[in-house]
Amino acid sequence: MKSKREIIKDCAARLFRKKGYKATSMRDIAQEVGMEAASLYNHISSKQEIFQELLLNMARLFTEGMEEIDGSSHKSIIKLEKLISMHVRFAIEHTDSISLITNEWVHLDEEPLREFTSLRDQYEKQFENIIKQCIEDGDFSPVDPEIALFSILSTLRWLYSWYSKQKNINPVELEKEMIHCLVDGLRNK
Amino acid sequence: MKSKREIIKDCAARLFRKKGYKATSMRDIAQEVGMEAASLYNHISSKQEIFQELLLNMARLFTEGMEEIDGSSHKSIIKLEKLISMHVRFAIEHTDSISLITNEWVHLDEEPLREFTSLRDQYEKQFENIIKQCIEDGDFSPVDPEIALFSILSTLRWLYSWYSKQKNINPVELEKEMIHCLVDGLRNK
Repeated sequence: MKSKREIIKDCAARLFRKKGYKATSMRDIAQEVGMEAASLYNHISSKQEIFQELLLNMARLFTEGMEEIDGSSHKSIIKLEKLISMHVRFAIEHTDSISLITNEWVHLDEEPLREFTSLRDQYEKQFENIIKQCIEDGDFSPVDPEIALFSILSTLRWLYSWYSKQKNINPVELEKEMIHCLVDGLRNK
Repeated sequence: MKSKREIIKDCAARLFRKKGYKATSMRDIAQEVGMEAASLYNHISSKQEIFQELLLNMARLFTEGMEEIDGSSHKSIIKLEKLISMHVRFAIEHTDSISLITNEWVHLDEEPLREFTSLRDQYEKQFENIIKQCIEDGDFSPVDPEIALFSILSTLRWLYSWYSKQKNINPVELEKEMIHCLVDGLRNK
């Protein structure tokens, strides 16, 4: 069973996504959870506290996933495919929190903002290094690694939003199709 | 030489992009243009007026480009490559206006909003039909056309933002690399 704190986090994430962090009040969160605003303060001290927890937990999940994949003995192209699968899974499982990473992170307070951008920058650097390694291995054609990184990440970043509007899409099928679009390309060869 | 109205439009687009439509005042626009707020009203009646003009002009440019490309006698895969090139060119030439299409269009008044979303939906439908035709022609492998459309458009939509941060990228090279990433794929075959 979910703890009260988990329920509060889920409700807050849903509201931050729908209304934006700034427009969401403690009162809104209390109403969504179904408790009095005064009681909510027994569980969390501010909306920034819960916002930080949502964003930094999500950033750490990505970092842990990257460490596990990048630390494995797989070839770089397999690592890249596993990263794409991870993004698809996270977009499906953590749709609300992921939306905050794409849109709302600028509202973090100074210190958590520093931690967040540092995790993100490190993540993107590792992602780019894996792309470079795919080129060195001869598995990728010689493309500009920065353009390839931008192209892949801009699609993966918006996946949560696109996915929420789909009704009948199989997650396993979606992983396969995303790898196909982003790695193999559309052209028949 | 640019007309006064063109100069006002450029300044407004820059501000709407930087501060957002809502946070930009007529006074801000006047200051950016270098005139008194009172004089600005001799040229435009409201910020919504200039905002509509920027967004609908941009949407119509895309629609005209689509009509020209889709009406040509080229094979669908060539049409798709030409569409990608058009997006790259527009992102470079109209960076500020394009950003409004990605982020700020929700602030349009009711009637222009209807026109804008109708142009956008029609554009995306035509884009998807071209992808379907590429699959039918055997030039694309059998991918889910909706996923392919999402993947291509999410990258093209954010190109303006990524491009603005690059210093030394050749536009012709960028067109080639984008077609490579989005159509050919990264994998060496």
